[in-house]
Amino acid sequence: MRWNELDREACSVARTVSVIGDRWTLLILRDCFLRVRRFDDFQARLGITRHILADRLRKLVDDGILRREAYQDRPKRHEYRLTEKGLDLHPLMMALVHWGNVHMDDGAGRPLLHRHRACGHDFDPVTVCSVCGEPVGARDVHVHPGPGDRGPGLIQNGQ
Amino acid sequence: MRWNELDREACSVARTVSVIGDRWTLLILRDCFLRVRRFDDFQARLGITRHILADRLRKLVDDGILRREAYQDRPKRHEYRLTEKGLDLHPLMMALVHWGNVHMDDGAGRPLLHRHRACGHDFDPVTVCSVCGEPVGARDVHVHPGPGDRGPGLIQNGQ
Repeated sequence: MRWNELDREACSVARTVSVIGDRWTLLILRDCFLRVRRFDDFQARLGITRHILADRLRKLVDDGILRREAYQDRPKRHEYRLTEKGLDLHPLMMALVHWGNVHMDDGAGRPLLHRHRACGHDFDPVTVCSVCGEPVGARDVHVHPGPGDRGPGLIQNGQ
Repeated sequence: MRWNELDREACSVARTVSVIGDRWTLLILRDCFLRVRRFDDFQARLGITRHILADRLRKLVDDGILRREAYQDRPKRHEYRLTEKGLDLHPLMMALVHWGNVHMDDGAGRPLLHRHRACGHDFDPVTVCSVCGEPVGARDVHVHPGPGDRGPGLIQNGQ
């Protein structure tokens, strides 16, 4: 498997990883969800080179995850905002946060809390089944080939 | 921010990314959830060098996400299994899969389907609030500092 072919793998994880499977990209996206929008703000928060930041932002725009929008005319200045496709990464971001909260706690407690506007409470994300609404854990899922399977594929014998 | 200090950042996303924010690591974990357990199987599926694979597996064991277990004595052979901490990455993996299913579809349909054993239906993962049980999207969440915040921190003014 090669990186530049990862987006063509018959696997939705591999395709997603081809777009966001980069550490800086994940941290840029974290900041987007925290409403950071301007190049200099990303740079100050992340402390990465302007070259790497510009490259990652450009890729995110090319992939339709961020859109570049002028917020000032003279001189021309742009900001970066999540598209709907980008906003759909929210469950992924919540899953990253929650696992870190549970398993990478340094004893000081959670750096950030997430309040559900609708009910007004701080919450944890829970993954449930779209059909029955019950929680779904790793042991509750049977994986089987779908129409896009190009077998002999991802699933091992005896799965 | 430096990579080797990422696990000490006061941010649960950064800490998680320090452990799993590597493309190969994410694909190795995908395979673990598909019940791949043996070095040679990982290698054949991913087509990566033995050196890189051994390095990533060792890190996952060191981080407590996989455990190394003998399955044969002569010659000694080991396999890699998800720990409870590793199994807790399942929501993250489902979020990766689902976003890829929705946004990186190549027109052939889904490569894999996920069946919820309890209800018997193929499902999509839905993220809900642990308090009220209602779905939570990006616009439904207010982020605020928790006890582990070392401010001036992750949250911008006016958030």
